[in-house]
Amino acid sequence: MPVGKKMHGLLTSIAKFTLIFEPMSKNLQDPSLRSWIEVKPDSDFPIQNLPFGMFTDGKTDPHACCAIGEYVIDLQKLHELSYFNNIPLPVNVFARTYLNDFIGLGKETTGALRARISELLQTDNKQLQDNKADREIVFKFQKDVTMLLPVRIGDYTDFYSSIDHATNVGKMFRDPENALLPNWKHLPVGYHGRASSICVSGHSFHRPKGQTKPTDAPPVFGACKLLDFELETAFIIGRSTQMGESVSTDKAGEYIFGMVLFNDWSARDIQTWEYVPLGPFLAKNFASTMSPWIVTIEALEAFRVKGYKQEPKVLPYLEYSGKKNIDINLEVYIKPENSEAARVCESNYRYMYWTMEQQLAHHTVNGCNINVGDMMASGTISGPEKHQFGSMLELSWRGTNPLKMKDGSERKFINDHDTVILRGWCKKGDLRIGFGECAAKVLPAT
Amino acid sequence: MPVGKKMHGLLTSIAKFTLIFEPMSKNLQDPSLRSWIEVKPDSDFPIQNLPFGMFTDGKTDPHACCAIGEYVIDLQKLHELSYFNNIPLPVNVFARTYLNDFIGLGKETTGALRARISELLQTDNKQLQDNKADREIVFKFQKDVTMLLPVRIGDYTDFYSSIDHATNVGKMFRDPENALLPNWKHLPVGYHGRASSICVSGHSFHRPKGQTKPTDAPPVFGACKLLDFELETAFIIGRSTQMGESVSTDKAGEYIFGMVLFNDWSARDIQTWEYVPLGPFLAKNFASTMSPWIVTIEALEAFRVKGYKQEPKVLPYLEYSGKKNIDINLEVYIKPENSEAARVCESNYRYMYWTMEQQLAHHTVNGCNINVGDMMASGTISGPEKHQFGSMLELSWRGTNPLKMKDGSERKFINDHDTVILRGWCKKGDLRIGFGECAAKVLPAT
Repeated sequence: MPVGKKMHGLLTSIAKFTLIFEPMSKNLQDPSLRSWIEVKPDSDFPIQNLPFGMFTDGKTDPHACCAIGEYVIDLQKLHELSYFNNIPLPVNVFARTYLNDFIGLGKETTGALRARISELLQTDNKQLQDNKADREIVFKFQKDVTMLLPVRIGDYTDFYSSIDHATNVGKMFRDPENALLPNWKHLPVGYHGRASSICVSGHSFHRPKGQTKPTDAPPVFGACKLLDFELETAFIIGRSTQMGESVSTDKAGEYIFGMVLFNDWSARDIQTWEYVPLGPFLAKNFASTMSPWIVTIEALEAFRVKGYKQEPKVLPYLEYSGKKNIDINLEVYIKPENSEAARVCESNYRYMYWTMEQQLAHHTVNGCNINVGDMMASGTISGPEKHQFGSMLELSWRGTNPLKMKDGSERKFINDHDTVILRGWCKKGDLRIGFGECAAKVLPAT
Repeated sequence: MPVGKKMHGLLTSIAKFTLIFEPMSKNLQDPSLRSWIEVKPDSDFPIQNLPFGMFTDGKTDPHACCAIGEYVIDLQKLHELSYFNNIPLPVNVFARTYLNDFIGLGKETTGALRARISELLQTDNKQLQDNKADREIVFKFQKDVTMLLPVRIGDYTDFYSSIDHATNVGKMFRDPENALLPNWKHLPVGYHGRASSICVSGHSFHRPKGQTKPTDAPPVFGACKLLDFELETAFIIGRSTQMGESVSTDKAGEYIFGMVLFNDWSARDIQTWEYVPLGPFLAKNFASTMSPWIVTIEALEAFRVKGYKQEPKVLPYLEYSGKKNIDINLEVYIKPENSEAARVCESNYRYMYWTMEQQLAHHTVNGCNINVGDMMASGTISGPEKHQFGSMLELSWRGTNPLKMKDGSERKFINDHDTVILRGWCKKGDLRIGFGECAAKVLPAT
């Protein structure tokens, strides 16, 4: 097979190449690394981050890019200018509509690429630093470009893995004494979502319409009255499997390319009426919002923390070793039209009961195949405290406890013209690795 | 925008073109049409059908094709030989991996193409009939080629729209007196499924493993013990929408390209333990099987019948007029290893409570966008009689009523090495329009 041969050739080059680059990639996350590009202390994008995205400046086709400080760096242009000559990359791999083909080259190549970008941006490297003409070609201010959906998402799965969220929902809608369902602590509950309506940050959408059921009256049709956000993260699959293959918790890291912030918009009134017995459908599939930058899992390794203590003991295929949670600060802001944004939630990814590695092991234990670019979301990430709840449903406790906005107005759920903004970042000493913003505005129903 | 301009040019050509071809396309389904290719009376593929698929002969790249009698006709070869010169088609539109780009050209073009193929195959047309060299290039026996997955399925939705199936399940697992859940007659219940593991007929798969919960004992891990088929059909989306758009029941037909048979394999024991509260997940996503031929909705129009009487009255956005069910005979066979196949179910698509037009209107009423190639499956299609039940769960009534195979063995569910075969066809007088076979063999768990 010609394709097989090509791939074999490529892998051989990569293997050779990795040996050369290994010493470099080991130091990629070194907190003492500095760039000749100015990076402010509160920036999400120091040289240790280098997340991947897709952008357009409105004049040319979409190109892949990395973020550094206030800039995007155009990877296709760097490639064309021969800065990546030692890395086995297809000619136009950064000029495709999505990052999938690049990510699909494998971690040896994407890691080597990231190491090379880091090298070019380090203070003592003059190659790009001293080439004004090239600098003007490859750098653009983030504020001057439009970020695009970074990956073609073949399949999207949403988990339900925060114990505080599941407990809150169980208390509200089921039995406060037995809030968690019997299966919850034995497996990471999840369901399939709609990939077509996942948009990148900045893409507004119309309030959905649908069927709802008033108490003691037949169902009615109209605009959703209880529109909610869900504070989530998601991971992007970096390596495909064949049907019948399973990925163990030990190997799961090799299949996770990186993470994004994710807002799983939810129409609570539509959900209540439709979701028994087959789960959420129209209550979720009208829109979801993801942040544009895929932060590599390697950039997050320094922030790993111990996982949630799991009792009862999980089945062997879900056991794992090492620190598998990540200390990611998460925030949600609501910005009413013509008013300042108010922070309504401060949570943390470390509150997750099930880890990404367990989610992926569970998802594939039946032989379900995964593809590069697939997205697996966490489910709403709530912490144990009231100000850490990751949805309006929980924050306002079904509307009984409205939140105050800065303009004096109150919110039980999300109003038309509100913008909901998620933020996320890790911090250790002076090193801050962030996700940028995941924001979307709600327009009135059509 | 250059793309927009191109598209406008294309649409203008199509508009002109449609006028020329209209008289022809009106007669495409005429039962009296005959082909110079021999078509046996029990063939699924008379000249009135001309379904679309993708095939490979093992030597060349995948090509799009139509079925006629025992043959496939290679559309890329016909295109290269200039048989489609009057139709505005991109050069290699039939040599892509999937039919999506072709289907995406729109019904004006795909309809004109089908009309042209019909014309070339009609008894009185000598153009291809008398050109032995071309005939040898474009025709291959179906038995000599491998059919491939015909479309790249962006998103896959499974409905639950057979009233007899929903009633049977409700009787078994909930309340026999109130078998249907309160929402069931108000909206076509559906959920999102996994697209990555949808395979074309002929693709065997391994029995899934997973968690199950014995009564009064902790959950265990192992091979599924209650593997089931689900007799379904599915429709393929032929026209995309933007987020925020809704498709009415009146216009839904314009968005439905065609139909296939679909086996939604289900692991009942895994499903029981995992599905509350978010619906089926690992119980379904290990494998699904679709038939290779997309039968156009136009080829099925002659078999339209009145829909199920819906009481209570549905909300206005779900109302429809005209005959919207279709009289499609459906059968399921189980073929144990080294034995003849036994027919275990005879059902009919006409038993569906919700029509495809209602399903699509519901799916998009909240603004959820759809894409060309998306698949929307019916849910298990059971009829009112016991021999019409569309799953082993119902046929064996949870295993209490085993079915006899031709080799004397019994089945409560599906055994390793069993092949399950779905068949479907419409018949009116001498005209038979069929779907071919949807078959897959179960291999032991790995």
